[in-house]
Amino acid sequence: MSIKDLGEFPLIALLTAELEKGPGVLLGPGDDAAMVQSPASGATLLTCDVSVEGVHFLPSADPFDIGYKLMTANISDIAAMGGTPLYALITLVLPAATKVSWVDLLYNGIRSCAREYGVSVVGGDVSGGSSIVVSATLMGSVDPNRALMRSAAKPGDVVMVSGKLGAAQVGLEIHSGKVSASGPLAQAALCRHLRPVPRLDLAQSLADAGCRSANDISDGLASEAWEIAEASGVAICIDASLMPVHPSVSLVAGNSESALAYALYSGEEYELVFTIPPSVLEACGDVLEGCVRIGTVLAGRGAYLLSDGVTRPLGRGHVHFADGDATPDKE
Amino acid sequence: MSIKDLGEFPLIALLTAELEKGPGVLLGPGDDAAMVQSPASGATLLTCDVSVEGVHFLPSADPFDIGYKLMTANISDIAAMGGTPLYALITLVLPAATKVSWVDLLYNGIRSCAREYGVSVVGGDVSGGSSIVVSATLMGSVDPNRALMRSAAKPGDVVMVSGKLGAAQVGLEIHSGKVSASGPLAQAALCRHLRPVPRLDLAQSLADAGCRSANDISDGLASEAWEIAEASGVAICIDASLMPVHPSVSLVAGNSESALAYALYSGEEYELVFTIPPSVLEACGDVLEGCVRIGTVLAGRGAYLLSDGVTRPLGRGHVHFADGDATPDKE
Repeated sequence: MSIKDLGEFPLIALLTAELEKGPGVLLGPGDDAAMVQSPASGATLLTCDVSVEGVHFLPSADPFDIGYKLMTANISDIAAMGGTPLYALITLVLPAATKVSWVDLLYNGIRSCAREYGVSVVGGDVSGGSSIVVSATLMGSVDPNRALMRSAAKPGDVVMVSGKLGAAQVGLEIHSGKVSASGPLAQAALCRHLRPVPRLDLAQSLADAGCRSANDISDGLASEAWEIAEASGVAICIDASLMPVHPSVSLVAGNSESALAYALYSGEEYELVFTIPPSVLEACGDVLEGCVRIGTVLAGRGAYLLSDGVTRPLGRGHVHFADGDATPDKE
Repeated sequence: MSIKDLGEFPLIALLTAELEKGPGVLLGPGDDAAMVQSPASGATLLTCDVSVEGVHFLPSADPFDIGYKLMTANISDIAAMGGTPLYALITLVLPAATKVSWVDLLYNGIRSCAREYGVSVVGGDVSGGSSIVVSATLMGSVDPNRALMRSAAKPGDVVMVSGKLGAAQVGLEIHSGKVSASGPLAQAALCRHLRPVPRLDLAQSLADAGCRSANDISDGLASEAWEIAEASGVAICIDASLMPVHPSVSLVAGNSESALAYALYSGEEYELVFTIPPSVLEACGDVLEGCVRIGTVLAGRGAYLLSDGVTRPLGRGHVHFADGDATPDKE
């Protein structure tokens, strides 16, 4: 059955029927606006992410994955501020021929991820359209005195990353059929691509420990390093020899240079890149398990890569609009 | 120049450069999430609205109008809860060939409306895509004890509307060239279509006076009456002879039956329909200037129209997905 056959209001009823009314939800979907308890921590976080057919996902993608990953992207943004994700709004643009079962699976993915991280879906909007667009806005809370801001990096800070990089891109290439691979490493890469894990607990522990500057890796480590450098008015120097390359990159990269490019430019990793003063670093202890030092914050401007004794500006990686209309770029 | 020529990051820089950092904004665009002061009133309102090329606006529409009206729709939703609009996030899906000047005008419209109603734009997301989709999420505040909820109508309440209806549809028909008209009435209708006014002050005065149930008229009075009736578990009976028809409807409606249909089904009016106990009504005084009684809340279920002594169920009006893919339905 298509959503045209079902109709707008029954579709909304279907999508909202299974939403749980979580703590703090005073009024869920169905009125002009949702009403939630204002966070007591003092500050509210707001972020949004959009996922577009033909750009972020192929028409053949599993709708559960699309929904799950959309929520992950938003939760990861709240995590990267040191915050707690709380409430989400979902906007759907759907062609009339879209199957009801497709939308139902999409919402299963959204609900599943939301439940896992304690997020309540409290409202949204639906509209017809010529291609599928799914977007989510997420509200969270944070203590403003311990928020993780990309503008807070200082010369002398150590640059760290929370896990091994490159697997999301490898998983994408396997999933899209560009690369043929099987076995444990291929499965690990697919898993990173389809079910990335926002580093919520780690980010909160870092904020507790006194870290003040972080980004989640959504557009690739290189792009995030540039953003921190520009927002903080500092130079960031990444040491190529310290970059933690995920073992699955060996499935696709023919040499160490290619492997490094995967680690630097793979997007949708949702690991954290953060900067931390050496004094705080010592006090962190077990919090930093799995995290690796990859570079240093220096006085200056821009992001650089130190490789074989030579320092050169770091390329930024993928940008939107550069590849023409609706060209799949991340998926 | 197209946004492809400009590039993603310069586009974001252009759009965020002119945003004013309003009161309560702790961190505006540029980080993983925006950070704002949590409302002290106790409750946070969240709403979102999407505007799709070919569905909500024609490709030839003035981008300033699209942006302005998108904000109006969201502000009206916060108003209809008795709340105060505060912060907005904007999501743009744009084909790479979109002109930079088009996006700049869209944002001028968004900023202009935001400024008028004290809203700060604090963040957003951009992506490529095959057609234009613009959506906004608006956060507001409200005292939860005096929120206007569509579930709060009670038998015995009077049903009222805040202005004369039908002009938004008339303005749409003139604007789209379906109808040819000029003169003061045509201008009034065009104005209602292009620059609808969210009834923010009235809604807050109604909440102050003790009104507890309201909807803004975004999908047509009939649809809103149904929503209040269903959410409140009551029957709403609208008296056709009391319906305030905007004088511009005379430009397009050949008889009183057609004129009534305009008043019942015209969407994007952004007037308020509200229900109010007779005792509260008496205490309202000047607050209700311009408001008209159109019916009564009764025990029962559903929305009805009393016309020429006969009561019959009220049709709902427009729904999404019913008219095929991307068929312009409101514009």
